[in-house]
Amino acid sequence: MGIVKNYEKIRDFSIAIVGLGGVGSVTSEMLTRCGIGKLLLFDFDTVSLANMNRLFFTPDQAGMSKVDASQSTLSKINPDVTFECYNYNICTVDNFDDFLSRLSNGGKTQGTPVDLVLSCVDNFDARMTVNQACNELNIKWMESGVSEDAVSGHIQFIIPGQTACYQCAPPLVVASGVKQVKREGVCAASLPTTMGITAGFLAQNVLKYLLDFGTTSYYLGYSAMTDFFPTMIVRPNPSCTNKYCQIRQQEYLEKVERDPSLNLVKEEEKEEPVVHEENEWGIEVVCSVDEEEIVSGLQELTTGVDYAFMRSDEIKPQIAQDEKVVVGDDTDLDELRRQLEGL
Amino acid sequence: MGIVKNYEKIRDFSIAIVGLGGVGSVTSEMLTRCGIGKLLLFDFDTVSLANMNRLFFTPDQAGMSKVDASQSTLSKINPDVTFECYNYNICTVDNFDDFLSRLSNGGKTQGTPVDLVLSCVDNFDARMTVNQACNELNIKWMESGVSEDAVSGHIQFIIPGQTACYQCAPPLVVASGVKQVKREGVCAASLPTTMGITAGFLAQNVLKYLLDFGTTSYYLGYSAMTDFFPTMIVRPNPSCTNKYCQIRQQEYLEKVERDPSLNLVKEEEKEEPVVHEENEWGIEVVCSVDEEEIVSGLQELTTGVDYAFMRSDEIKPQIAQDEKVVVGDDTDLDELRRQLEGL
Repeated sequence: MGIVKNYEKIRDFSIAIVGLGGVGSVTSEMLTRCGIGKLLLFDFDTVSLANMNRLFFTPDQAGMSKVDASQSTLSKINPDVTFECYNYNICTVDNFDDFLSRLSNGGKTQGTPVDLVLSCVDNFDARMTVNQACNELNIKWMESGVSEDAVSGHIQFIIPGQTACYQCAPPLVVASGVKQVKREGVCAASLPTTMGITAGFLAQNVLKYLLDFGTTSYYLGYSAMTDFFPTMIVRPNPSCTNKYCQIRQQEYLEKVERDPSLNLVKEEEKEEPVVHEENEWGIEVVCSVDEEEIVSGLQELTTGVDYAFMRSDEIKPQIAQDEKVVVGDDTDLDELRRQLEGL
Repeated sequence: MGIVKNYEKIRDFSIAIVGLGGVGSVTSEMLTRCGIGKLLLFDFDTVSLANMNRLFFTPDQAGMSKVDASQSTLSKINPDVTFECYNYNICTVDNFDDFLSRLSNGGKTQGTPVDLVLSCVDNFDARMTVNQACNELNIKWMESGVSEDAVSGHIQFIIPGQTACYQCAPPLVVASGVKQVKREGVCAASLPTTMGITAGFLAQNVLKYLLDFGTTSYYLGYSAMTDFFPTMIVRPNPSCTNKYCQIRQQEYLEKVERDPSLNLVKEEEKEEPVVHEENEWGIEVVCSVDEEEIVSGLQELTTGVDYAFMRSDEIKPQIAQDEKVVVGDDTDLDELRRQLEGL
């Protein structure tokens, strides 16, 4: 095979895909066509005609659950792949327990964990749920997303304790880079394209990581408007509010102490950590592969990558005692909440 | 729609797609789902089970012609799109005449030319044929390609007379950027991903150009191994051996003379053309959008973008009289040819 030493190994891997929208469905098809061993598919939505402007689903599947429609298409394409379908919302308490159990036991060999979780969801709660499960179970996962206006997307590889988890910092999104663009509304033209490209990046990264070729992407963004592709690694936040993230960070530090070669960040880079000005999150953008990417990642964080929003629960711990805000009795709490959400 | 002023306009456009392999088929699906007015599909191959490691075709279509299989899938997805299918090789003399006639008359309004031609073929002869037809008919086209090892791809927008045609210079390909990689063999893992990403770039660029949003890409490369995305514009070669390219260049120069605002290259850039050292092709990499991209394009031409090969018929005119090579009677012509091909 030249580039991949042992391609047949792909049959040994099991991957959970959460969300079968424009990104998740195409990713599942790419991995199926590559001959992945097993896919666990999670979604609680049904196919509708409004999905036809993305790839994968077909009009005759309208009304079917997305997991059933996907399994039907995928098993016809490659009958050798094993599928497990879960038509439920992972965010409810009951389902979360089952979700944890499936991730822990859904490996190619029954009773072993899945090799990777892919988050292809379109909302914050589901991403936080995947984050919680993967931190708790210490399973590597990849986050993906397409902006609401459908002209940018990103993928991010989260290794609990080693790279920033979804709660370490506000989510990173790619700025369009074109100031005059009106941001309201969806760019219907870019729905199948931006989502297909993001799915391609995600599946490619899965293959690069599992089959050990090329350089695994830790963060890869895409702006359709300007052909802009930021890359970087974001390190975990030592004061992350996720308990399991803290535990994974501690485990990783101990592991690196025993074997410094395991450190994602080389020693010379650690001496001068690259810190963003006014860095209230303590986020460090560090080198993934070579010098080019440090510079590129850094520039992008300031000029091309934005935080999606500032979360009130994470801003709170940053307020020092003497800076505490005094709220009068006449303050409208709903109005304050609205303002926070608008940030 | 915010980003796109008049999305409904997409129904007015007609596009010819030549080659329905891993890139062309996915591009046709993306454009169909976006609601393109009309697609003219050209291919003379049949679907085989060996195609299942790319997206789009399904095992039950094995044995069907690619154009028929595509039309069947696409018209079910969006019955509003008009299809014209041509199951022939555009490179033979008879078919070439029909190909020219369809490009000239296949517009949404019968008798008008198509709005764009997309080359999604996998061989040099077919690309030269598309180039010849588009130079002759003065139709804009986009070239696309995925490397033989399937870990890099590119798209290129060719506007006859304004940007380099396929004969102006040897084809540009993205170097893998990873020296230790063995280049022999196909990376089966990357077939659906690299081809899907390249198709996404191609369809996105079609939409950006036709619907006038964002910055149209003139050359956009992709290296999966290193997440490397070179961009640039390549200007036409004034001594291009293609007669119609010369005519289009002349027409363009005259047009710019009458209205300098039409020039792709701004005046200040023209004063200091950016020329590659040892530039035997006289190729200039010029700014597409902003300063960043000039630098980026330039770096990539030297470090990340290679010429696919050097063509003997184009090297010839560059040899000055006093540098003429004297070939002895005992020189083995076949050996010389082999050496040239090996360059």
